[in-house]
Formats: sequence, structure tokens, C-alpha cells
Amino acid sequence: MTKFDAVVNVLLKPGISDPQGQTIERALPALGYEGVQGVRVGKHIELSVEASSEEEAYARIQEMCERLLANPVIESYEVTVS
Amino acid sequence: MTKFDAVVNVLLKPGISDPQGQTIERALPALGYEGVQGVRVGKHIELSVEASSEEEAYARIQEMCERLLANPVIESYEVTVS
Repeated sequence: MTKFDAVVNVLLKPGISDPQGQTIERALPALGYEGVQGVRVGKHIELSVEASSEEEAYARIQEMCERLLANPVIESYEVTVS
Repeated sequence: MTKFDAVVNVLLKPGISDPQGQTIERALPALGYEGVQGVRVGKHIELSVEASSEEEAYARIQEMCERLLANPVIESYEVTVS
């Protein structure tokens, strides 16, 4: 078994309202930062997982995303294994 | 002014307790995923910013991180501009 480091980025799907992103977008001009658009806030998850191959690690993390790390109804995710 | 897309990843600094990560780490074995360690949960922020150069966009986003997007006392951040 080898240990693989992985990064998972979880974002709300396009069209799903993102109140945290909207709040940041409204707050920035008040701080003097104009011209900022399309702010979307998601989760950045780092973890290390034991697996016999990079493919297996990737597959297991995909499964964890579907079952725990993301809500696949409203969120999309991106897994990077290194 | 050109529009630059950027990604900001915000993570708790090493040594700062991460209850969300700990909860995920404890929940995974119960779902059948053994061998997962070092789970850290942070924020993944996507945004687009108007600036006259990539360097200026990068500098402005760094400043936004210091002032709004991250808490530099307990969080570190990583900015990628494309």
C-alpha cells in the first residue's frame, strides 16, 4: 500500500445560488476593490489515502466525494491525486 | 483593462485545529474507507478580476486575501491567476 496525497475541490454547480460568494462580491467594492465578478466559494479538501495504485486512490476518493465530501445534487467536484 | 480568472485556496495553517477535517476523518472509516489521514478542509474561491496586467491582478487578489478572503492570523492562502 502506498500513500497518495490528494486535493479535492468542491464547488456549487452553475445556477445554484451561492450566498457566500455574493456577500464577498458585494463587500469588495466597499473595501476599494472594483471590477471583481463571478465570485464562487467552495471547499478545498486535502487528504492522504492509502491505496495500491494511483488509479485506485483516485477511484476511492471519487466514491468518498459522492458519499460524504460533496453533495452531488448541487455540487461538482474535482479530484487531483499526486 | 483585461479580465483575469483566478483561484484562491485558503487553508488553516499547520497546527491550527481543524474540526471539520477531523470530523470527516472520523466519519470515513464508518463508511468503509480506511487508511485516510491528514484531512484538512479549507475554502476554494473562484473569481474574475479586471486589471491592466496579470501581475496587477495577482497583487490585488493577494491584498483582498489579507483583508477579506482569509484570516492571515490562522489561515494561509494560495493565489493562481490565469
